[in-house]
Amino acid sequence: MLEHRERLRVRWVDTDASGRIHFTAAFRYFEVAEFEFLRSLGVSYAKSEADFPRVSVAATYKKPLTVDQVIEVRIRLDRVGERAVTYACEICHEGEPAIEGHVTAVAVGPDGKSRPLPEDLRRALTS
Amino acid sequence: MLEHRERLRVRWVDTDASGRIHFTAAFRYFEVAEFEFLRSLGVSYAKSEADFPRVSVAATYKKPLTVDQVIEVRIRLDRVGERAVTYACEICHEGEPAIEGHVTAVAVGPDGKSRPLPEDLRRALTS
Amino acid sequence: MLEHRERLRVRWVDTDASGRIHFTAAFRYFEVAEFEFLRSLGVSYAKSEADFPRVSVAATYKKPLTVDQVIEVRIRLDRVGERAVTYACEICHEGEPAIEGHVTAVAVGPDGKSRPLPEDLRRALTS
Amino acid sequence: MLEHRERLRVRWVDTDASGRIHFTAAFRYFEVAEFEFLRSLGVSYAKSEADFPRVSVAATYKKPLTVDQVIEVRIRLDRVGERAVTYACEICHEGEPAIEGHVTAVAVGPDGKSRPLPEDLRRALTS
Repeated sequence: MLEHRERLRVRWVDTDASGRIHFTAAFRYFEVAEFEFLRSLGVSYAKSEADFPRVSVAATYKKPLTVDQVIEVRIRLDRVGERAVTYACEICHEGEPAIEGHVTAVAVGPDGKSRPLPEDLRRALTS
Repeated sequence: MLEHRERLRVRWVDTDASGRIHFTAAFRYFEVAEFEFLRSLGVSYAKSEADFPRVSVAATYKKPLTVDQVIEVRIRLDRVGERAVTYACEICHEGEPAIEGHVTAVAVGPDGKSRPLPEDLRRALTS
Repeated sequence: MLEHRERLRVRWVDTDASGRIHFTAAFRYFEVAEFEFLRSLGVSYAKSEADFPRVSVAATYKKPLTVDQVIEVRIRLDRVGERAVTYACEICHEGEPAIEGHVTAVAVGPDGKSRPLPEDLRRALTS
Repeated sequence: MLEHRERLRVRWVDTDASGRIHFTAAFRYFEVAEFEFLRSLGVSYAKSEADFPRVSVAATYKKPLTVDQVIEVRIRLDRVGERAVTYACEICHEGEPAIEGHVTAVAVGPDGKSRPLPEDLRRALTS
C-alpha cells in the first residue's frame, strides 16, 4: 500500500490564543504530506495539466498540539478513482495519534469540469 | 431551530495559485459565522471559562469560490450535547450552495479535560 | 487626499499562542482595506489587466489586539508613481493607533515585468 | 556575527491567485528561521518567561517565488538592545536574493509591559 511519512515541526503561526494549534493547521500539514508523497513518486500537482481542487476533507482531533513539537504526518493512498484520489492522513506526536482525517481531490480541466486523472499521476498511484 | 446567516467577502489572501480559494478558507468562514452566531445569542467562547477546541470538522466543496465574491455562511445548531456542540454550515454564492460542512467543538477545562458546557452557553443554545 | 476607513473585527484565527494577534494579521487587514478602498473608487486589482505584487511593506506595532475587538483600518493614498502605488495604513482600536504601516504595490504584466499602471486605476487614484 | 540558514520549501498554501506566494508568506518564513536560529543557540521564545511580540517588521520583494521552490532563509542578528532584538533576514532562491527584511521583537512581561531580555536569551545572543 502506497504510503509516505513526513516529519514536520509545529510553528508559532500555527497556534491560536488557546495555546494550541488552530484546527486548520491540520489541513496544511496534510497538504504538505500529500505534495511530498507525490514528489516521492516523481509526480507533482503543480506541474500537472490538471488542477486538483479538494471535494471532501475531514479531520478528527484527539490530542492537542503545541508550538515546537515535532510531528509525523502519515499519508496513505486510500482510493484512486477514475477522476479523484482519496488520501487517509494521520498526525502523530511521540508515537501517539493526535489528528486523523482524509482528503479527496478531483482532477479538473481548464474549463473547470472534472476530467480523468492525468496518465502520469494515475500510473504513479497505481503501480 | 437556531440559525445564523453571515455575509462575508472572499479575500485575496484566501486564494491560492489555482485562482480559487484554498480549501482551508472554508473553515475560517465557518468559524467567523460560529462566533457571530454566538454573539447574536449574547454569549462568547472568548469570554467563557472553558476552551472550545474542535474535535471533528468536515467540508465538501461543490462550486469554486473566487476573490471578491460575496458569500453567505449559513450556520445552524445541529446538536447540543452534555459537553459538545455541533454546527451544520453551508456557504452559498448567489443563492447556490458552494460548500457544506460541520464543526463539533467540545468544552475543555484548564486541565485540558472535557467538561460540561458552561451554563450560559447551554442556556443560550437550548432556549 | 484619497482615504478610506474599513471597520473589521479581529478573528480567532488571527490570534496566536501569546493571546494576541499574530503580527501577520496586520497585513491581511491592510489588504482588505486596500481592496475596499479601490472598490469605493470603482476599480479592482482582480479585474485588472495587470498584477499588483507588493514590492515593499512594513508595520510597527504599538498596542496589542485581541480576538473580538472591532478595529478601524485607515488607508490613505500616499504616492502614485508611474508604475507603483504606495498606501499608508493605520489600524485603530477605540480611537487609539495600534498598528501603522505602508504597502507599495507595483503593476506587473503577463511577462512578469513592471509596466505602467493601468489607465483606469491611475485615473481613479489621481482624480 | 551570529547567523543561521534555514532551508524551506514554498508550499501550495503560501500561494495566491497571482500564481506566486502571498507577500505575508515571507514573514512566516522569517519566523521559522528566527525560531530555528534560537533553537540552534539552545534557547526558545516558547519556553521563555517573557513574550516576544514584534514591534517593527518590513520586507522588500525582488523576485517572485512559486510553489515547490526550495528557498534558503538567511537570518542574522542585527542588534541586541536592553529589551529588544532585531534580525536581518534574506530569502534566496538558487543563490539569488528574492526577499529582504527585518524583524524587531521586544521582551514583554505578564503585565504587557516591556522588560529586559531574559538572561538566557541575552547570553545566547551576545556570547
